[in-house]
Amino acid sequence: MPDLNKLCVHTITTKPWDFATACEKYAEAGVKGITIWRDAIEGIDSEQVKGLLKKHDLTLVSYCRGGFFPAVDEKKRQEAIADNIRMVEEAAAIGAPMIVLVCGADPKQSLETSRNQIVAGIEATLKVAEKYNVKLAIEPLHPMYAGDRSAVNDLKTATEMVEKINHPLVGVAVDVYHLWWDPHLEEEIYRCGMTDKLFAFHICDWKVPTTDMLLDRGLMGEGCIDVPRIRSWVEHAGFNGFNEVEIFSNAYWEMPQEEFLEKIIEGYKNHS
Amino acid sequence: MPDLNKLCVHTITTKPWDFATACEKYAEAGVKGITIWRDAIEGIDSEQVKGLLKKHDLTLVSYCRGGFFPAVDEKKRQEAIADNIRMVEEAAAIGAPMIVLVCGADPKQSLETSRNQIVAGIEATLKVAEKYNVKLAIEPLHPMYAGDRSAVNDLKTATEMVEKINHPLVGVAVDVYHLWWDPHLEEEIYRCGMTDKLFAFHICDWKVPTTDMLLDRGLMGEGCIDVPRIRSWVEHAGFNGFNEVEIFSNAYWEMPQEEFLEKIIEGYKNHS
Repeated sequence: MPDLNKLCVHTITTKPWDFATACEKYAEAGVKGITIWRDAIEGIDSEQVKGLLKKHDLTLVSYCRGGFFPAVDEKKRQEAIADNIRMVEEAAAIGAPMIVLVCGADPKQSLETSRNQIVAGIEATLKVAEKYNVKLAIEPLHPMYAGDRSAVNDLKTATEMVEKINHPLVGVAVDVYHLWWDPHLEEEIYRCGMTDKLFAFHICDWKVPTTDMLLDRGLMGEGCIDVPRIRSWVEHAGFNGFNEVEIFSNAYWEMPQEEFLEKIIEGYKNHS
Repeated sequence: MPDLNKLCVHTITTKPWDFATACEKYAEAGVKGITIWRDAIEGIDSEQVKGLLKKHDLTLVSYCRGGFFPAVDEKKRQEAIADNIRMVEEAAAIGAPMIVLVCGADPKQSLETSRNQIVAGIEATLKVAEKYNVKLAIEPLHPMYAGDRSAVNDLKTATEMVEKINHPLVGVAVDVYHLWWDPHLEEEIYRCGMTDKLFAFHICDWKVPTTDMLLDRGLMGEGCIDVPRIRSWVEHAGFNGFNEVEIFSNAYWEMPQEEFLEKIIEGYKNHS
């Protein structure tokens, strides 16, 4: 069983709850970590955000999500960099130690070009990240998102980017949903671990059948991903951070969220 | 521009047409190759199939699709092998030189176990394949199908299986839809080519957005896959077989199929 003190929930997982409710409910349920999605705190003052986290004794794990660097249009690329810099400042203001990057892709150009623009975008963001000591985690996304969401589609590619950028603040986020199918996942996780580049670990499950490419993620235990096995690799690689539950699901968002949170905790205890 | 004499269409691409109509329309449009899906000729005598192919001067490229070997249940596995053996006999009867394998996966077991069962299934089918000299092509499927359709999700894994089986009748089918995202695709295509294991080449496109995980494939040119570039790799690797158009699309199946076939030929000429 995973360490209950290492359970983190992403605010988007319980999307129907506003931020204050999420903090309260997570704390009541014994959840210790929270990853904040940007839209969850839109319009909320950063001091208020920090106050709620402190009140409920929640550890802020990550701020989601930066990235989306590639674009055929140069102006759009510059806007993306400016937006990532703003996100670093926001992260610093609420006390988030890390930003997760959904790197982006532009279907009008090759994946290689998009990957080069991602590296350039991260490098351009790093100066501000250094100032505030905010980590940037490249999250490789499932190949089904290569068209428009990310040109980084396996852990090897993400790690090679991290090695190319070669900066202590840049690492990777491993999400079982995106990477479970990769026959080389175990060795690539160890490779990351050797250089302490494994910054985050996200969990959920892959349902069979999956009816929506974005919003039909499963709870741990209801799909075909062997989460405990992948967690064992991640821990063997030296990772000792939070296990972050990140589920986008129309079906679960329609359910009373208290009930869903109970299921999350059960799935965490028994199938993670 | 690709060689017009190398254009092959899969019967499923124009699913609304019965087999006789497909043969007639393909020939009228100047299509030289056909890949027959099993259900397209269900209930049609094999001599009649051969007669139609001959009448319309169509080259039979492949018979689709065998495989689906893995199962937790041993009885199901044996049934799958028996079914693949029947498919080899059917292929021989209609004069198909090759069967394409959608290898299968059982979500109740690990991908490694499924892969081992795939190798065992192919080996069990080979005796009959040898008798009739029918090739078996492992088609790696996109990782979004790893849950239940195929435990072989990149070209490297497929090639490693082929190398393990090490039989002149066993090779791979490269489908741009499944593999376009892979940063190592070019080198893996050359690796296959070096040992003459590249048996088939399938084309279509990846639409952005893709609205259905199975039935929303695009015509060459309407998505983000650089088909001409991948074709150049395949040809550089020594492949000189047909370029097979395999599109599953609810949208296109609803269109008058003559019109769709015209679009296919245009997409083939200008974007393949």
